[in-house]
Amino acid sequence: MQKIKAKTLSGFMELTPEKQIVFNEMKDKIISVFKLNGLSPMDTPILEYSEVLLAKAGGETEKQIYRFKKGDTDMCMRFDLTVPFAKYVAIHQNELIFPFRRYQVGKSFRGERAQKGRFREFYQFDVDIISDENLSLNADAECIDIFSQIFEALDKRVIIKINNRKIINGLIEFYKLTDKSDEIMLLLDKKSKISEEKFLEELKKLTSKANEIQKILNLNEPQALLNYKIENKLFWQGVQEMQELLEILKIRDIKNQYVFDQSIIRGLAYYTGTVFEGNLVDLDEKISVGGGGRYDNLAETFTDKNFCGVGSSVGLSRLFDLLDKNGLLQFSKTTISSLAIIPLNNTIKECLALSKTLIKSGISNEVLYFDKPFKSKLNYANKKRIPFITVVGEDEIQSNLYSLKNMETGESIKTDSRGLIELLGGKVE
Amino acid sequence: MQKIKAKTLSGFMELTPEKQIVFNEMKDKIISVFKLNGLSPMDTPILEYSEVLLAKAGGETEKQIYRFKKGDTDMCMRFDLTVPFAKYVAIHQNELIFPFRRYQVGKSFRGERAQKGRFREFYQFDVDIISDENLSLNADAECIDIFSQIFEALDKRVIIKINNRKIINGLIEFYKLTDKSDEIMLLLDKKSKISEEKFLEELKKLTSKANEIQKILNLNEPQALLNYKIENKLFWQGVQEMQELLEILKIRDIKNQYVFDQSIIRGLAYYTGTVFEGNLVDLDEKISVGGGGRYDNLAETFTDKNFCGVGSSVGLSRLFDLLDKNGLLQFSKTTISSLAIIPLNNTIKECLALSKTLIKSGISNEVLYFDKPFKSKLNYANKKRIPFITVVGEDEIQSNLYSLKNMETGESIKTDSRGLIELLGGKVE
Repeated sequence: MQKIKAKTLSGFMELTPEKQIVFNEMKDKIISVFKLNGLSPMDTPILEYSEVLLAKAGGETEKQIYRFKKGDTDMCMRFDLTVPFAKYVAIHQNELIFPFRRYQVGKSFRGERAQKGRFREFYQFDVDIISDENLSLNADAECIDIFSQIFEALDKRVIIKINNRKIINGLIEFYKLTDKSDEIMLLLDKKSKISEEKFLEELKKLTSKANEIQKILNLNEPQALLNYKIENKLFWQGVQEMQELLEILKIRDIKNQYVFDQSIIRGLAYYTGTVFEGNLVDLDEKISVGGGGRYDNLAETFTDKNFCGVGSSVGLSRLFDLLDKNGLLQFSKTTISSLAIIPLNNTIKECLALSKTLIKSGISNEVLYFDKPFKSKLNYANKKRIPFITVVGEDEIQSNLYSLKNMETGESIKTDSRGLIELLGGKVE
Repeated sequence: MQKIKAKTLSGFMELTPEKQIVFNEMKDKIISVFKLNGLSPMDTPILEYSEVLLAKAGGETEKQIYRFKKGDTDMCMRFDLTVPFAKYVAIHQNELIFPFRRYQVGKSFRGERAQKGRFREFYQFDVDIISDENLSLNADAECIDIFSQIFEALDKRVIIKINNRKIINGLIEFYKLTDKSDEIMLLLDKKSKISEEKFLEELKKLTSKANEIQKILNLNEPQALLNYKIENKLFWQGVQEMQELLEILKIRDIKNQYVFDQSIIRGLAYYTGTVFEGNLVDLDEKISVGGGGRYDNLAETFTDKNFCGVGSSVGLSRLFDLLDKNGLLQFSKTTISSLAIIPLNNTIKECLALSKTLIKSGISNEVLYFDKPFKSKLNYANKKRIPFITVVGEDEIQSNLYSLKNMETGESIKTDSRGLIELLGGKVE
């Protein structure tokens, strides 16, 4: 039979069990943060009508998208969780209770050029708080707080950089640079990655006020902006919101550091007010591991009703890869079983009964029932690094005493099944 | 601005929060069964090379598949979790420890004609035990056991129908019907849905031995097959395996009923030995809610190495829909918050602190910080059916006594924050 080479598409993550266990643990921790914060779960299809998904998209996004026809239907794989959310809100607006606070976890797809740390299929963890009326800055603060809690749960430190896009948009209006708005935004977006000189040089190509603007953009206290005579309503609104947000953040017990940083823009996307982004503290490279911001009129392509909101997103595929490549993850388990139960001679029945008792107590375990010699069973348990084993023979059954062997220390303890449960951290009824 | 109609592709499930909560609870319960049984987690991409995914597929499957090109790459969305598993095993065979026991949860896609209870995007929950050597029938029993545990965890009863394909394949050989094999299999596949007369009538079109074969196929004890003089090795092997499997199942404490049923075939797919399928007991309609079986040579399209195994799959989208349509699910929650904390006047800071304390104790809650009158906050909590509320004003802060109101009974209890935690079922440190 002719063989086909087994291979996975490049840019698509596929992990060995050892790494998948850690990935899933991280996933569970993030979802647990969402649940504890009382967010409602949401799940939308991976495929959508192209006209729905691409209603607002343009340029780069459209080029990256996986789009195709099946019969007469023109469809796309989602490239984020935000557009499907807008669609969802427009469809279900009469069934939802606002403010609607949701989380969604799922894969998104972008067929972009393969590059370091970028995946074409990636897990996103989104939070959004959306309202059909005004929504106070408390919601922005909550989004940032939940974002911080995620990294706390993952035991990784981030620095959260916060900005308000009204400030730069106001400056652009004030300096009459509206026609160069996109270029200025894109330049700001890479400000943290280039030198001050380079930034100034580039800015000078766009405006004669480059020196003045650079000075303003380097301020890291909203109060300091008050010294500048910028006669623009949007600018002052931005400064005021930024001040207010920082005040509200103070009353939240946020464990990660956060700073005002005017280089944070979050691309050209739909954000209109607060924007924020997280960088890992323990990495030299400044790579965004997520962020979010405030948007007006989320569902404007679908409905006349105005929905404003604030959201945040963490990309776990990228984060995991980044932590892994930098040696910041520990892969100690190849299995989630705490215990291997090894039958000796014909004790499978009793082994299975013991296994079920442990399962009921919440202890993950497996019975090594395979038709293999005892030695290869030991070998299997060893190679899989199952932390404990117990061998069940006639003696164990008659005495109801099991020998629990710690595979790391080599120590054994004799105990009954209740003792096994206690030693393995299960719930004794 | 011109509006685009917000709509979801037909055949794609999208739930309101109330139903999503129940869906996710079911999902979590199934995953918990997998974990307790010590299965390793796996995750593979949704997109694969077409040549990889379609290596073995044919006919109907190929027609249903979402296939497209991006640049020069011909790719498909996966239509099940088995072919990607075969690919995974072929790629990672040197890193895996066999027998490899895995679970995988994810969406699969089939663009089939929309029909009742069929989804084009559907969640599958797969278990496989695969070996690079022989694998005893204990593995088949374990798969069936885990399948049963899933429905136990979901608190739904199933009847598990088990067969061994060697029996029918042996009969086909014995009666020299090999050229009609597919037709016989397809007829058997619908046996439970048509009358005995109709089945016989159809079978007569295929063979003159229809009466005899029908009689054999209606036997529901493997022992009863011993009375027939079928001189065929495969047949006897099937009968013997079936007997042995039923013996092994007896020593497992399986809560759901299981029976030998020769009409179970599981389509034309790759199964070679044991096959099984579950039907919900509380439904009149006999619809499969999952099943699985034994396969030889899983990865034969990719590698010369022989991997045999046994697997099972539960389709949650279909199961959920079926239970929902038949009124067998209860949607009592629109939120996962146990408690709404309502600030009175300027107590947001203290409300947030209380919220964090409760989060640390594992109690899902939310602070109603919205700029809305007190009455609309009460209204929000009511509409969302948050089970408990507590209003925090100056008095509560000074006395450190909170009034916990049960929204269903209307009862209030005054207690301190530790008391709140206890009453709401949190962990007191």
